[in-house]
Amino acid sequence: MSKKTEDVLPTNIGEFELIRQFFCSDFPSSPDTVIAIGDDASVVKPPANSELVQSIDTQVADVHFPATAPANLIAQRALRCAVSDLAAMGACPQGFHLALTLPQSDAYWLKDFSDGLKKAAHELNIALMGGDTTRGKQLVISVAVQGWIPLNHDSNSQALTRSGAQPGDIICLSGKVGAAAVALPQVLNNPADTSGYARQYYFPEVHLSLGQSLLGQATSCMDISDGLIQDAGHIAKASDVQLQLNADAILLADPDSPALCMTGGDDYQLLFTLPDTVESAELIRQHASASDGVHKIGKVVSGSGVNLSGDRELLADLNKAGGFNHF
Amino acid sequence: MSKKTEDVLPTNIGEFELIRQFFCSDFPSSPDTVIAIGDDASVVKPPANSELVQSIDTQVADVHFPATAPANLIAQRALRCAVSDLAAMGACPQGFHLALTLPQSDAYWLKDFSDGLKKAAHELNIALMGGDTTRGKQLVISVAVQGWIPLNHDSNSQALTRSGAQPGDIICLSGKVGAAAVALPQVLNNPADTSGYARQYYFPEVHLSLGQSLLGQATSCMDISDGLIQDAGHIAKASDVQLQLNADAILLADPDSPALCMTGGDDYQLLFTLPDTVESAELIRQHASASDGVHKIGKVVSGSGVNLSGDRELLADLNKAGGFNHF
Repeated sequence: MSKKTEDVLPTNIGEFELIRQFFCSDFPSSPDTVIAIGDDASVVKPPANSELVQSIDTQVADVHFPATAPANLIAQRALRCAVSDLAAMGACPQGFHLALTLPQSDAYWLKDFSDGLKKAAHELNIALMGGDTTRGKQLVISVAVQGWIPLNHDSNSQALTRSGAQPGDIICLSGKVGAAAVALPQVLNNPADTSGYARQYYFPEVHLSLGQSLLGQATSCMDISDGLIQDAGHIAKASDVQLQLNADAILLADPDSPALCMTGGDDYQLLFTLPDTVESAELIRQHASASDGVHKIGKVVSGSGVNLSGDRELLADLNKAGGFNHF
Repeated sequence: MSKKTEDVLPTNIGEFELIRQFFCSDFPSSPDTVIAIGDDASVVKPPANSELVQSIDTQVADVHFPATAPANLIAQRALRCAVSDLAAMGACPQGFHLALTLPQSDAYWLKDFSDGLKKAAHELNIALMGGDTTRGKQLVISVAVQGWIPLNHDSNSQALTRSGAQPGDIICLSGKVGAAAVALPQVLNNPADTSGYARQYYFPEVHLSLGQSLLGQATSCMDISDGLIQDAGHIAKASDVQLQLNADAILLADPDSPALCMTGGDDYQLLFTLPDTVESAELIRQHASASDGVHKIGKVVSGSGVNLSGDRELLADLNKAGGFNHF
C-alpha cells in the first residue's frame, strides 16, 4: 500500500483500481505460482507426486456474519473457515481465489477488508491467486481454497476422508466445542467486540499441522461446521459405522451449556478416528494439553448413526435441542 | 435424476437434499478426479508435466443477467463465460467448483438450473468437483474453473498471457464482435427468448480448441469480456506495445452498429497476436471461414495504447461511445 493510497481513499472506485490497490500486493507468495492476479487466469505448477485438494466456501452478510462487523474481521473469518476444509483433508495450503460481491465499493471498507485478508493469508501461508469483484445488493464472499498432499510411497492418495472409520477405532476431537455458538449473542449484539468467546468466532483455529500429522494415521477426519453431533453423523454414514460418543469426555467451551456446545455450528475443530494402537496414543499425547487440545471422545462400533452416552440430564437437553436427527 | 424426484419436487428443500438431488450425478467425469462432491474438499491428481490454470467468475442477478431469465439459460451462460478464461490461456478444462447463493431453494428452479449446468458441462467436458450453497437476498453464481496445459519440452509454461505481444506481430480475432451487446435490449425485454443475437448472449462460443492450437504460437491472447477496444488496451499495456487496429477488417455482429459492437462487452471472442510468419498465416487459414472465424484485424507496433484506423464516421462514433479511454 503506497502512502498516496492511504492518504486519499476515494469512497467509490472502479473494479480495476480496486484490485490494483487492495489485492495485488503484500499477500504471501507461493513457490508454485507461475501467474497470479492480472491475466485471464492464474497458473500454478503442481509439485511432483502431490494431489490437489480444493474447497469453495461462501459467507453471506447477515446470514453467516453481521453485515456491520468490521471488514477486517469478516475477511479473516471467511478465509479461516474456508482453509479449515484443507486442514480436515490433511493438506498444506497453496492459494485461494476470491469472489467478492459488494453493495458499494467503499475504499475505506475495502482497505480494512484487504488488511484482514492479508493478515489471515500470512498466518495460514496461503497466496491470493486471483478473483472477481462484482456489484450486488448484499455482501457475498466466496473463497475457493487449495493445497497439496504428498502421495504415499505407492503413489496413492493419502487425503483424509469421512469414509474410512472402522469398528474398533477410537474417536478424537482437536479441542473444545461450542465457542462459536456460545459467542453468537455477543457477536450479534456488538459485532466489533472480539473479547471472550467472540475471539474464537472471528478467528477459528485452523488445525493445519494436526491435519497433516494425521496423514497415514487417521482412518477418517472432518472439520466440525454443522455441530459435533450432526457432523459425527456424517462420518458414521460415509463410513457405514456407528460412532459411540462419551458426552462426559467431550471438552466444552462452556460447561454450563453442554447441549448448545455439542450441536452448535462453526467450531472448525477436527473430528477424526484412529486405529486403537500405541502409535495413535502417542499421536494424541503429542497434540493434547491439560485444558484443551486433542482428546478421545468415544469409539467406533458396527452399526449406524451416533450413539451418545453420559449424563441423563444432558441427553434430555440434547433431545430438546434437536441434535439427534442423525439417529 | 430418479423418477421419484421428477414426480414430486418440493418447493423448499434443505442444503444436503438440494446437493444430492441436483448436483451429485449426470455431470461429466474427469480422469484426474480422486474425490469429488461429498467430503470436506475435492481431490485431483494432476497429470504429469502439466500446469494448472484457474479462474473464478461471478454473475449476479439483474447485474449480469435478468433475474427472471430461465434458470437453465442462466446456468449455461455462467459456466460458458467462466470457461472462456481457460480458452484464453490455451487450457483444456478439467473441473469446476460452484458457489450458489439463492434467495429461495425452489426445487423446480433448481432442477432447471442443474439441467442447464449439466448441458453446458457436457458440451465443455468439465466435471463438477464441489460447491457451496447458501441463502441470500439475491441470486449470485460464482464458478471457479480449472484446466491443464502441458508444459513444453523444456518443462516451461506455455500458458497464453496478455504480456508477450511484440512489435511486428499481427493481431487476430476469433470471430464477430458485438452480438451480446446488440442482443441486450431483447434479452432485457424478453429474457426467455433465445432467438437471433440472444443465442450468442446466452451461449457464447467458448474457443477451447482454438486456444489450445495457439499454444507455442500466439505471443499474447485474451478473451473479450470488456469490449474489443478496452481489452485491446489491456494487451497493449501488459505487453508494453501499441495495438494498431484496422476498423474495416473487424467483423461485426451488426454492421449497422459498429461503435456498439467494438465497445460492447460479453463477447468472449479471443483476441490474440501472432508472429508475422508463414506458420501463423496457415493457422489463421485453418480457423477462418467465409463469414466468420479467425481474421486479421491489425498489427503490433512500438508505443502504447490502441490506435484505430478506418472510417472517419466510425471513429467519431467511437469517441462518443467512450471506447477510447485506453488511449
